[in-house]
Amino acid sequence: MQAKINLQEKLASFEETWTPKVVGELNGQYVKVVKCRGEYVWHHHEHEDEMFLVLRGSLRIELRDGVVELGPGECLVVPRGVEHRPVAEGTAHVVLFEPASTRNTGNVDHAYTIEAADLEKI
Amino acid sequence: MQAKINLQEKLASFEETWTPKVVGELNGQYVKVVKCRGEYVWHHHEHEDEMFLVLRGSLRIELRDGVVELGPGECLVVPRGVEHRPVAEGTAHVVLFEPASTRNTGNVDHAYTIEAADLEKI
Repeated sequence: MQAKINLQEKLASFEETWTPKVVGELNGQYVKVVKCRGEYVWHHHEHEDEMFLVLRGSLRIELRDGVVELGPGECLVVPRGVEHRPVAEGTAHVVLFEPASTRNTGNVDHAYTIEAADLEKI
Repeated sequence: MQAKINLQEKLASFEETWTPKVVGELNGQYVKVVKCRGEYVWHHHEHEDEMFLVLRGSLRIELRDGVVELGPGECLVVPRGVEHRPVAEGTAHVVLFEPASTRNTGNVDHAYTIEAADLEKI
């Protein structure tokens, strides 16, 4: 039998920011949790749409043509090819939903980069 | 620019139960919201894994080999082929994540059935 996933418990189990952890998988997509604090790096994903869902705190998604502010219970789908930069003033607890192949910094090599194959599963 | 999706606002916009509404789409998957109350119908999805995420209330997912009780912030992935029946004592507010092709009652024809092409987008 599948086990349930408690998202806040998963988020409480680590402190690192900008380090997505895989908590579930379905239909070739990963469900990830990540803590965000400060400014991420501008990037895009060539072949993957990406969904951000905020559970706690607030997350600003900067886009080249505007800004979206997300609070708890709010989501944004960033389509493939669209440059974006997440920014959090405090610490935001975020769920990501995206293909298992997705590289966290997309087209950009950066200190934050974690190859999809190296993501931790918790 | 993509618009953000406020899940609770979407859920507040309708009253019907067991009537999933599409609120987002990415990578061939739909994000849906649904209000659950009472007993659903036993069914499975032949080719689709399905994720339930509870936002408010509680949802029991009955499986042939056990039961999983989900509260707010808890998810369950039901793999393809696995028979399941959602049951809610009160009204549960639930997010579904599954392929756009997914038929709500899976292999079963039922009064609750809504063909994937007929789902309302809100």
